[in-house]
Amino acid sequence: MPTLSNRQVVLSSRPSGIPQAGHFEIRTSTVPELQDGQFLVKNLFLSVEPAMRGWVNAAANYSRPVEVGEVMRAFSAGRVLRSRHPGYPEGTLVMGVLGWQEYALTDGRTIRRRILEADLPLSLSLGVLGLNGITAYFGLKELGEPRAGETVVVSTAAGAVGSIVGQLARKLGCRTVGITGGETKRRLCLDLFNFDAAIDYRQPELDAALRQACPGGVDVYFDNTSGHISDTVLPQINRRARIVICGTASVSNWDPWPQGPRVERHLLTKRARMAGFLAFDYEDRYEEAIAHLAPLVRSGELRYREEILDGLEAAPGSIADLYEGRNLGKRLIRLADD
Amino acid sequence: MPTLSNRQVVLSSRPSGIPQAGHFEIRTSTVPELQDGQFLVKNLFLSVEPAMRGWVNAAANYSRPVEVGEVMRAFSAGRVLRSRHPGYPEGTLVMGVLGWQEYALTDGRTIRRRILEADLPLSLSLGVLGLNGITAYFGLKELGEPRAGETVVVSTAAGAVGSIVGQLARKLGCRTVGITGGETKRRLCLDLFNFDAAIDYRQPELDAALRQACPGGVDVYFDNTSGHISDTVLPQINRRARIVICGTASVSNWDPWPQGPRVERHLLTKRARMAGFLAFDYEDRYEEAIAHLAPLVRSGELRYREEILDGLEAAPGSIADLYEGRNLGKRLIRLADD
Repeated sequence: MPTLSNRQVVLSSRPSGIPQAGHFEIRTSTVPELQDGQFLVKNLFLSVEPAMRGWVNAAANYSRPVEVGEVMRAFSAGRVLRSRHPGYPEGTLVMGVLGWQEYALTDGRTIRRRILEADLPLSLSLGVLGLNGITAYFGLKELGEPRAGETVVVSTAAGAVGSIVGQLARKLGCRTVGITGGETKRRLCLDLFNFDAAIDYRQPELDAALRQACPGGVDVYFDNTSGHISDTVLPQINRRARIVICGTASVSNWDPWPQGPRVERHLLTKRARMAGFLAFDYEDRYEEAIAHLAPLVRSGELRYREEILDGLEAAPGSIADLYEGRNLGKRLIRLADD
Repeated sequence: MPTLSNRQVVLSSRPSGIPQAGHFEIRTSTVPELQDGQFLVKNLFLSVEPAMRGWVNAAANYSRPVEVGEVMRAFSAGRVLRSRHPGYPEGTLVMGVLGWQEYALTDGRTIRRRILEADLPLSLSLGVLGLNGITAYFGLKELGEPRAGETVVVSTAAGAVGSIVGQLARKLGCRTVGITGGETKRRLCLDLFNFDAAIDYRQPELDAALRQACPGGVDVYFDNTSGHISDTVLPQINRRARIVICGTASVSNWDPWPQGPRVERHLLTKRARMAGFLAFDYEDRYEEAIAHLAPLVRSGELRYREEILDGLEAAPGSIADLYEGRNLGKRLIRLADD
């Protein structure tokens, strides 16, 4: 086999807040020889996630921090190029924690899914049919427990997870209210993602706007932001409301730890529940989510939006934008068409 | 029937924070004639609850505020003295929302329980076999979901609810850690209520003391305080921890709304759950709790402590002390021995 050179995005210094382009560098290494039980994935798409901020920060998190000098942790989708693993023959499409690099050598432990929905674009395996869809599906179903007629409020409603949460909740017969930043995304929420109402959180009268959009109060709050948006939603929750904590995008730094209005009184008087959600806890049930979501994608009932950047060079600077709210749709890096 | 005069404790002005003696006055009224379907309860014990602060404040709560000029809302236990209600013959022992007064006329809707455990002191029906016991039992079981070997931390651990939570959790095989104020109560937690460890929250190194008492982290936090104690516990919770919000005793006023460290990040990284508990939601299951607790009281396995004040005159000033932490045991007002 000819030697392959592998361009990789490496963490070069540890950011204290949101990772910027300067915290990474691109290096070229050589792909080692395959050992028995290993296979080589050619990455075709790399994912860009808000969660990456947590992965590169040193503070306690749900996973160990990416070390300086290490290839940036990322979900990627690609095709098996060479294989000495009987379970992953050449040509298999896979998605996994394969890093921001052109090629990933693995024994299968970093693979999260074999992609069987080959009729659909591979990029979807990193978005609506990837962790975003899985997060929306299980977070809403298992922790949100929405019932027909209830009001479901979603923050980062035009985002990769929020937009799916809204559509799934509406299919269940809920009134869906999306909170997002700016008129462009507000229109996306209404026109593309079919929210019943959409609110720009930058307006001065967010509290009043939310009250108007939720005349019956809030039964489920799918929270991707924390911060000011959550502080506005909490006083409007109903009895037995369920709050799904899926992300904290509005908080740029947890050192020093930010303060906010205490939540205990709301939870007590409303007998409400607030619970953290992480899709990784549902790894053994991923296919259940895909089996629910893929038919909805095929039929056009579940809409999504992608924002695809080209080339590995786009990766280092691609995270910061997510926190500025500048992206419209699931952000991906395309490395090759095949 | 002779006319009965009824001394009543009436709310005379609305407190903005903790109700003091001066917010009440004692007035004397005449008990009206019984109508068909009514009965008259002679109150023997009146309860004093931390929740009373919420009942007399005008702010949104789980029940409508007590109006100025109205008899103070309270749980009371007594005996049916006169009856024109077939379900409650003379001599029946009852517990209900019968108010801070000597006599309560009712059609039964304010009754919460008929007291069947007549071998035990009637006062217990307002404490360990009343709402305190019911709250501890369902709050721990339904929201705390403790499993053997887990660590359960309880705030106001020497209090009427906390002391029961600790004992029930220990019976389930949990490591129990009580947080309380002062050395007297700390000793009560260890010596009377059998906590595995007890911590005085007034010490300067609360964080370190809690870490030492919970070497395996915190799996269940039964929270009666909010505030500084909760802010110390939250960073020490384990994955899938359950936090039961049962009271907010450390917060003397919610106007202006107090700030605290944001909880979302803890809940997210630990996939933990925080939920509000109110015993009233379990009204149709009260007897399930009593059936569990009464045998433990009879056998001496479930210990309790009462602090009984004598006479209606003691009632107006009896709430404020609870917030000073000066009471040792469930506080009651005794009106008569029979």
